[in-house]
Amino acid sequence: MSEDFLKAGERIDQLSSQGIQIIQSSKYFAFSLDAVLLADFVRPNKRHKLKTIDICAGNGAIGLFLNRKLNGHITEAEIQPEIADMASRSIKLNGLEDRYDVMNIDVKDIFDYVDKDSFDIVTCNPPYFKTLPSSQKNPNRYLAIARHELTINLPIVAEKMSGLLKMNGKGYLVHRPERLPEIVRVLEKNRLMVKRIKFAYPKVNKPANIVLIEVIKDGKPGGLIVEPPLIVGDKDGNYTPEVEAMLNDN
Amino acid sequence: MSEDFLKAGERIDQLSSQGIQIIQSSKYFAFSLDAVLLADFVRPNKRHKLKTIDICAGNGAIGLFLNRKLNGHITEAEIQPEIADMASRSIKLNGLEDRYDVMNIDVKDIFDYVDKDSFDIVTCNPPYFKTLPSSQKNPNRYLAIARHELTINLPIVAEKMSGLLKMNGKGYLVHRPERLPEIVRVLEKNRLMVKRIKFAYPKVNKPANIVLIEVIKDGKPGGLIVEPPLIVGDKDGNYTPEVEAMLNDN
Repeated sequence: MSEDFLKAGERIDQLSSQGIQIIQSSKYFAFSLDAVLLADFVRPNKRHKLKTIDICAGNGAIGLFLNRKLNGHITEAEIQPEIADMASRSIKLNGLEDRYDVMNIDVKDIFDYVDKDSFDIVTCNPPYFKTLPSSQKNPNRYLAIARHELTINLPIVAEKMSGLLKMNGKGYLVHRPERLPEIVRVLEKNRLMVKRIKFAYPKVNKPANIVLIEVIKDGKPGGLIVEPPLIVGDKDGNYTPEVEAMLNDN
Repeated sequence: MSEDFLKAGERIDQLSSQGIQIIQSSKYFAFSLDAVLLADFVRPNKRHKLKTIDICAGNGAIGLFLNRKLNGHITEAEIQPEIADMASRSIKLNGLEDRYDVMNIDVKDIFDYVDKDSFDIVTCNPPYFKTLPSSQKNPNRYLAIARHELTINLPIVAEKMSGLLKMNGKGYLVHRPERLPEIVRVLEKNRLMVKRIKFAYPKVNKPANIVLIEVIKDGKPGGLIVEPPLIVGDKDGNYTPEVEAMLNDN
């Protein structure tokens, strides 16, 4: 029974488009649409020896959603023990222990555990919000760490992504468009050339609220592709067919 | 008769949505949709003493398209004598000599003619393409100068835009998304904070081919708004209603 995998307050959600079940918790961590969009944005790669790592992995949603798209081995690095444990149990729930592992570590210390320049793909859905004295933080510490730059920030994310990637390896980041100029600057400072961007708009007539970014380590500058826009919701507030197809099996 | 304003090989096009007639020439210069989109992207400002300058003005299309949106005085700076002359005649054709003037100058020398820090708004539709030895240039020198960075380039455009603007003045640029990371870097290096961006996509399922950028001189970093996407053409290759409304009177 799937329920054997659950602790108190947890539930199992489905991403039926990818045949994945994932343990969620409103107290500790629940993946959002952003994780689905980032996994969808990643280019498929069927190389047998591919090495992928998801940093700031949360409950491991992105890694699991990449199950059918990427071959090889996938590592998930998450700082919070309770949430890393959810990620481990979701891997077992899906019977994917042979291809996945979870590291419950602070990404700042990642090179104590893995080699530099050793990954083909790095994905990251980092905390989006700067930790300013004035900013209202979530009183739930678990959720606050996932949303605010309390234990990691954008420059460290970029530095670690770059350090992890092989030359010409691909990094994928989901973030807020509000910070795009800073994001581009910080990435390029870390040898990560921005090669592809896609914006998601909550509705057709609303500003973008999600940006998906593909970088290539030591890639040539120039030649950015801004992908067709993704409209998430229709005027009635339902998901558009494009998003619906990412979520549910047809 | 309007024809009195024309020289050999010229024609008059209308932007009926703005009640503007403009002299065009396939030999020297003809405005493109990019100019219409940039003028549409500019925020209205009805301040009486407003000072606006359009650099790399071509035949003055952008300045004229801003006629109803901006009050005050509008200057158009264009390096090529034949094209600056077209701009002057279009101003007369529309009876707007009291609000407009044309300077036939090299923008690199702009501060020999106007004061630094003296404009509220600067607009620019610069040449888009780097002049690399390998790049194919238009054998028509007039059109080549408008398309390729032969007489001016992005760093100089940004430097002059910044120098022309008062503190907190607004700059508007239209360019190619392929160069966006470089554009953002060069603008910010010149104290021009990117505050608003809009992408235009030729069709709903095609990558963006135009980016519109609003900067504020010495603006606060962060808070970028990525405006709703503009889809230019429908699946039959006709303009969408949104673009049609920019072009034609309803």
